Amino acid sequence: MLADAGIVLTESERESIEVADFGLGRLEEVGLQIVVYVNTERVCAKELVLFPGQACPEHRHPPVGAEAGKEETFRCRRGSVHLHVDGQGELVLRPGDQYTIPPDTLHWFRACDDGAIVSEFSTRSRDEADVFTDPRIVR
Amino acid sequence: MLADAGIVLTESERESIEVADFGLGRLEEVGLQIVVYVNTERVCAKELVLFPGQACPEHRHPPVGAEAGKEETFRCRRGSVHLHVDGQGELVLRPGDQYTIPPDTLHWFRACDDGAIVSEFSTRSRDEADVFTDPRIVR
Repeated sequence: MLADAGIVLTESERESIEVADFGLGRLEEVGLQIVVYVNTERVCAKELVLFPGQACPEHRHPPVGAEAGKEETFRCRRGSVHLHVDGQGELVLRPGDQYTIPPDTLHWFRACDDGAIVSEFSTRSRDEADVFTDPRIVR
Repeated sequence: MLADAGIVLTESERESIEVADFGLGRLEEVGLQIVVYVNTERVCAKELVLFPGQACPEHRHPPVGAEAGKEETFRCRRGSVHLHVDGQGELVLRPGDQYTIPPDTLHWFRACDDGAIVSEFSTRSRDEADVFTDPRIVR
């Protein structure tokens, strides 16, 4: 999917694509494929790949110590994705569309029938600090 | 060039592409075409488009108030670019290659003969705070 979208990865990036099933064992329904380009103390950039109908479950990014929670901008590159943001309802992002999610705000998203590639531009990623609504989820 | 690389922009983004000649009036040699996706207090993401041989002149991003200078990761998407970073010498970035430039570090870059598209992932952009080595440059 990434190659079809013209996104070039190095060999080591291709080998280190993260496949996250959030500990639920239902990857095709609930899961994400993630390429992390950079994740410094200040900035993170990733590509998120979603299979048709695949969802990332509801969660938020709380503050960590004195630092505000993670701020994320999702930009749809291919396909389309339904994005649910607390207080905003449901948005549909198509290629070229983007949305910035404030820190500590509940959100979840699901690819439409054509799957999706979404670029994420954010502050530092600390997956272990994420708070998921479903208590069975493990990151 | 962006469309050829599979990068989809909205109509308003296409209309607001920034063409920067750095006040030198020699755009084909010294200049940048810039699409700003997002620039919040914490995170910025852009696409930089360079014509063949076009260069962005030497500059650095100093601290602003209590905040450290801008940290930038350049990821080459198409074409190739020579990146000069103070203390690192010259790097060549080809598609899939990237480099993170620390705050307040002199750098400049020039596209090779095939031009280049470079994604920039960074902390907040404050162009007016940039310090260029050539005193004739105006941002």
